[in-house]
Amino acid sequence: MGTGTQTAQAPSPALIFDTLLAFERTAALRAAIEVDLFRAVGQGPADAAELARRCSASPRGVRILCDYLTIMGFLEKQDSRYRHTATSAAFLDPRSPSCIASTARFLGSPLMLDPFNHLADIVRNGRTTLPGEGSVEPENPAWVEFAHSMAPMMAPMAGPLGELALNGLSGPVKVLDIAAGHGLFGIEVAKRNPQARVVALDWAPVLEVAVANARKVGVADRYERLPGSAFEVDYGGPYDIVLLTNFLHHFDPPTCVTLLKKVRAASRPGGRAATLEFVPNEDRVSPPIPAGFSLTMLATTPTGDAYTFSELKQMYQEAGFGNVTAHPVPMSPHTVVIGTAP
Amino acid sequence: MGTGTQTAQAPSPALIFDTLLAFERTAALRAAIEVDLFRAVGQGPADAAELARRCSASPRGVRILCDYLTIMGFLEKQDSRYRHTATSAAFLDPRSPSCIASTARFLGSPLMLDPFNHLADIVRNGRTTLPGEGSVEPENPAWVEFAHSMAPMMAPMAGPLGELALNGLSGPVKVLDIAAGHGLFGIEVAKRNPQARVVALDWAPVLEVAVANARKVGVADRYERLPGSAFEVDYGGPYDIVLLTNFLHHFDPPTCVTLLKKVRAASRPGGRAATLEFVPNEDRVSPPIPAGFSLTMLATTPTGDAYTFSELKQMYQEAGFGNVTAHPVPMSPHTVVIGTAP
Repeated sequence: MGTGTQTAQAPSPALIFDTLLAFERTAALRAAIEVDLFRAVGQGPADAAELARRCSASPRGVRILCDYLTIMGFLEKQDSRYRHTATSAAFLDPRSPSCIASTARFLGSPLMLDPFNHLADIVRNGRTTLPGEGSVEPENPAWVEFAHSMAPMMAPMAGPLGELALNGLSGPVKVLDIAAGHGLFGIEVAKRNPQARVVALDWAPVLEVAVANARKVGVADRYERLPGSAFEVDYGGPYDIVLLTNFLHHFDPPTCVTLLKKVRAASRPGGRAATLEFVPNEDRVSPPIPAGFSLTMLATTPTGDAYTFSELKQMYQEAGFGNVTAHPVPMSPHTVVIGTAP
Repeated sequence: MGTGTQTAQAPSPALIFDTLLAFERTAALRAAIEVDLFRAVGQGPADAAELARRCSASPRGVRILCDYLTIMGFLEKQDSRYRHTATSAAFLDPRSPSCIASTARFLGSPLMLDPFNHLADIVRNGRTTLPGEGSVEPENPAWVEFAHSMAPMMAPMAGPLGELALNGLSGPVKVLDIAAGHGLFGIEVAKRNPQARVVALDWAPVLEVAVANARKVGVADRYERLPGSAFEVDYGGPYDIVLLTNFLHHFDPPTCVTLLKKVRAASRPGGRAATLEFVPNEDRVSPPIPAGFSLTMLATTPTGDAYTFSELKQMYQEAGFGNVTAHPVPMSPHTVVIGTAP
């Protein structure tokens, strides 16, 4: 929750008003991305009338939207002209290589939005109102969208994760990438180690995205598909590295332990299981982004959560892993947790 | 937008992630109000299991919701127990006389929410996707909800507005309260001046709420109904004071001028027209709450806006008012603007 977070010292009705209208911020940023406003601003500073022309939108709509984006820090306004901020130039202009505007698609998908229209019911009943297993329903097409649209946000994590996973390992290594999604994490290992072979596990339609990404960077010949459920398919192996990225948070601890036992059984002695997760502090209310992620899991899954390091460590240990260590990813809300198979 | 607002200095993907998930904050606060969590917390600090019992909700749901509310500043957590913050004690616990939790009903009504699901279309077309005139559609039942649920948030503004409107006036005064809503503003004038007579103008079902409020404080014998549209009914008069609270922002400037001319025609020489409005600075991007309100008007009305003081002054002057002055309401995002009839 980044900048919006505070512990109010003095009583503040403004904080309540602000929060009850926070949905407007999401809508404003999504609308700006949808009308391609950040591309239009990137064509050069301009007033609302000119930006409206560039976007084929209305001057009233663009003027009010641009003012609102300025208030939020996504544009700068000087006199009546708008220009990029550092944030919008780097992360919202589609011509920037680090643009993450596509994340609006997954984060604004019905899977993410609908349950929040019924959050009181979810709090009463303790589980998602989505049908079946919610976001973890087998073959949920949302994960194809995830693989496509969340890759740019996850890309900066691939380097640090790859480095940690490979640390001290050289020569031929066999890698299992569970819930591969966009595939960027397994692909990163393949890029860093030319003798690495990667088995990517996910639903078949999702693996299409991962394989396409592996082709783009020339590692497809060392990239194998293992379609299906992580709980059901035979992993093969043994593996030197198993990647479990953005996955455990969907399940309750016993289910995570079951999965980790299966991972351990498929690991070579000394093999590593590396998870990438939102890991809140033990107080579960800090830092804001990892701690706040728990609510997303409440809303969209039957039993998922954002687990603390001590919880993850216990799961790893119950599954037979030792030497469990946490590695916060610099400049990111994510943490890599690594355990070693006996 | 209060605490969530910033101008990003360094590029920040976290600000984008935070904004794309800001709708979760709104949902969390609304869910907490709906399951009556703040009443439960007010019964004494407790852990999630105990609060879940008090709310007849699930321990998982309440635990995760309470952590999220703690991150936002609406609860404090010590060890595993949650207690009120100054803000939740004063403004969210239903037993507090200053509780404004009911505002979640109007701010979370379909009138407010639905257009934001189509904001890109609204930006393209420049007007609300709501049918007809949107929130200003004649007899829109949303204004009954507004009158009921927004009164507690508006109540603190009544004193300052009443004081400004009556300043220097004593003895018998006649007051027209246009778009009276909950009626609190006209009622405040009646409370402060026992010789004041108030004519309250609004749609008939809304006036039921205003009259009930007038009865509660014993001024109903000096409180008269004028049901209908502010643009159509005969105001009568002449009036010493005309109140125009939270009304002009729904319309474009020519429509506001038309209305103000009608107000002037019904005013005694020297009579005052007092508006209560969100008035942004001339840059239209500060302060955050008044400036951000413009987006709500884009989404919910065909031509409304949050007007700057210079825009309001010009409307007043075009309508024939002089001596137009702005009076920011202390500790509030609102401003009172007063003009004097010739």
